[in-house]
Amino acid sequence: MTKLSTQPYKGTRDFYPEDFRKRQYIFDAWTKVCQSFGYEQYDTPILESADLYRSKTSDEIVNEESFLFTDRGGREVMMRPEMTPSLSRIVAGRRQEMGYPLRLFSIPNCFRYERPQKGRLREFWQLNADLFGVEGPEADAEMIQVADGIMKQLGASSKMYEIQISDRRMLDWLLKEELSLSDESAAKAIQLIDKKSKISGGDFVSGLIDLGVEQEEVNLINNFLSVESLDQLPDACQQKEWYQDLQKVFMILAGCEIAFKFKPEIVRGFSYYTAIVFEVFDTDPTNNRSMFGGGRYDGLVSNFGVDGLPVTGFGMGDTVILEMLNARNLWPDLKPKTGLMLLPLDQKSLDQVGKFANELRSEGKNVAIDYNIERKLDKRIKAAEKLGIKQVGFLGQEELSLGKIKLKDIATP
Amino acid sequence: MTKLSTQPYKGTRDFYPEDFRKRQYIFDAWTKVCQSFGYEQYDTPILESADLYRSKTSDEIVNEESFLFTDRGGREVMMRPEMTPSLSRIVAGRRQEMGYPLRLFSIPNCFRYERPQKGRLREFWQLNADLFGVEGPEADAEMIQVADGIMKQLGASSKMYEIQISDRRMLDWLLKEELSLSDESAAKAIQLIDKKSKISGGDFVSGLIDLGVEQEEVNLINNFLSVESLDQLPDACQQKEWYQDLQKVFMILAGCEIAFKFKPEIVRGFSYYTAIVFEVFDTDPTNNRSMFGGGRYDGLVSNFGVDGLPVTGFGMGDTVILEMLNARNLWPDLKPKTGLMLLPLDQKSLDQVGKFANELRSEGKNVAIDYNIERKLDKRIKAAEKLGIKQVGFLGQEELSLGKIKLKDIATP
Repeated sequence: MTKLSTQPYKGTRDFYPEDFRKRQYIFDAWTKVCQSFGYEQYDTPILESADLYRSKTSDEIVNEESFLFTDRGGREVMMRPEMTPSLSRIVAGRRQEMGYPLRLFSIPNCFRYERPQKGRLREFWQLNADLFGVEGPEADAEMIQVADGIMKQLGASSKMYEIQISDRRMLDWLLKEELSLSDESAAKAIQLIDKKSKISGGDFVSGLIDLGVEQEEVNLINNFLSVESLDQLPDACQQKEWYQDLQKVFMILAGCEIAFKFKPEIVRGFSYYTAIVFEVFDTDPTNNRSMFGGGRYDGLVSNFGVDGLPVTGFGMGDTVILEMLNARNLWPDLKPKTGLMLLPLDQKSLDQVGKFANELRSEGKNVAIDYNIERKLDKRIKAAEKLGIKQVGFLGQEELSLGKIKLKDIATP
Repeated sequence: MTKLSTQPYKGTRDFYPEDFRKRQYIFDAWTKVCQSFGYEQYDTPILESADLYRSKTSDEIVNEESFLFTDRGGREVMMRPEMTPSLSRIVAGRRQEMGYPLRLFSIPNCFRYERPQKGRLREFWQLNADLFGVEGPEADAEMIQVADGIMKQLGASSKMYEIQISDRRMLDWLLKEELSLSDESAAKAIQLIDKKSKISGGDFVSGLIDLGVEQEEVNLINNFLSVESLDQLPDACQQKEWYQDLQKVFMILAGCEIAFKFKPEIVRGFSYYTAIVFEVFDTDPTNNRSMFGGGRYDGLVSNFGVDGLPVTGFGMGDTVILEMLNARNLWPDLKPKTGLMLLPLDQKSLDQVGKFANELRSEGKNVAIDYNIERKLDKRIKAAEKLGIKQVGFLGQEELSLGKIKLKDIATP
């Protein structure tokens, strides 16, 4: 028989126990903070009809990065590249039965056919937290609070990340109303603004000029994007709903002592965002980039033939968080759950060890047994060390007659 | 735009919060019992190279029931139909670095293209618990103890299920040594024995005759399969290793007060099992069937070009457990994690509610807020009821001035 490879499929990861504990540590932080804000966990199938993604997920993902195939019954299916379409589907499915405000979170694994690189993998996990049924900006402020709470729960100080906030309606107003761009040109200008931090200033300007924007208007856009607080905006903005919503969000966050920055160029990639959007940046100078974000996407559930619903939410991937915890050295000591390995020393002890173990288990201890009495004792202790187990307990004639096991702390790596 | 369907992909399930809580209740029981026996959790990617399954997983699954496709890079991949091949892969990948005995468990979702029916779905979750590096039957007895412990953790009494135990080597001995069947005929006879409880006695006999078994030998097989205790077997069996291993397992289980039955016809479907095997049956007369099982499959890791390892393990799917808990009425009251919904009554209270909520959260409470002050109060209370939240707290002028919120228990469905 040909020898099989021990490597996982390209761009995916195996989670050996020590890796699993790290993943679980992140999931636990996500879960704890979401639950403290009243979010309830849900899940959906990994496979969905491909149609679900065609309308609203980015074309790039659907056409180039999807795990798309036809099942044995001729159905075109996709392994989910993101959770929002599935979430919209299930909320639409019980549009009337649900109570609002409805708070939901999930930790799905998602799949994208990408060239594997730092922070981008083909299988990744992503917290999704979403709040349905609140039109007011209090909901947007809450999502940012939850995101901030998670960062702090994971041990990050507020200096390690920066929350940047904007509103899609603001750029819509600037581009369409003030500069009279067509819907199509405005959408392209917004895509350009989304990439602004990754391209040169010259490319940004020529990109805008290509869209028919005049040089003078380019300056106006550039000035607008460099604004750092609401009061630097033209007075005409103060009556706009987006201005008042941003003002309210900023007030709530300040009240919770959450640091943030107004950043007009934040638009987020997905086309379904409609109003307030935010991104959280890593402030590490060697890794200065967007870690995650979210925003308001009112109306997505109406694609399923039910009344629309206001929604705001965010997603946070496991890989960027893993990297931040690595780079910032924020990992706690994540020991195995098994605290003790019992080592029977002879046949008689081997026959009795189960009872001792069950007694310890009934007291809430997690107890493993090494049944290999024929192996040398130092090798058996070495094996427990390799497993990261902190204590061993020897069971021989003496312990049997006393009915008591001696415990011994061992060095673990 | 066409209206999208709110239905999940055929044969899969959405987990709304109340469904998720049930699933999590099962996962928590699995995790708790496995950890108490010293098992550490791991995970592997859902996608694997199709080659991984071709040699050892049943042909039926690979050829007819797999979610098999070619990725954008031309790799043939499969969504995992079971966990054992992936587990063998990762253990082989660190064959030398691992400490033994090595105890691992996982709760993967697996995928099979089946006609959806009761207890069989296209996406299901399955506990996998495996013990590597122990040749002795103590390991097999431990797996059965873990399985039994889980049933009890889930509230099942020992009358609700029956653990049936056998050993593959026993039938191998009978068919190949005693009856001199060829390897191929013996393998087919074993497949027939696996199906015995689902076919008629006549079909069973004619199936054996078709394999070249004489009528007299058929009687011998039938007699052998009806044996109910080891001492009913021919004396010649007593020197066989399988006999002594079964004897030891039975002794250990009796010592732990675990009920079981010796059942020679138990063989398990997968071809990789090599010695002791077991199945757990539901004793409900309306649902009398195998719920799950496992056994020893020594040597599987050697397919990856490393030294073989003794292994024994079992798998337990979520769907049969869900059905058992439903049929036996064993569910506890699984309430939402959110204990309280705060209802600000006016704009001033709305501005202040976050502080009250954060204070309660810092005391460990899970607190949701209803920001919709424009809605009628009875509708807001009704929404909290729909969400299953047990308490609401009103925040108005009086509460603000007192700095204290009145809590009110509400009826939940």
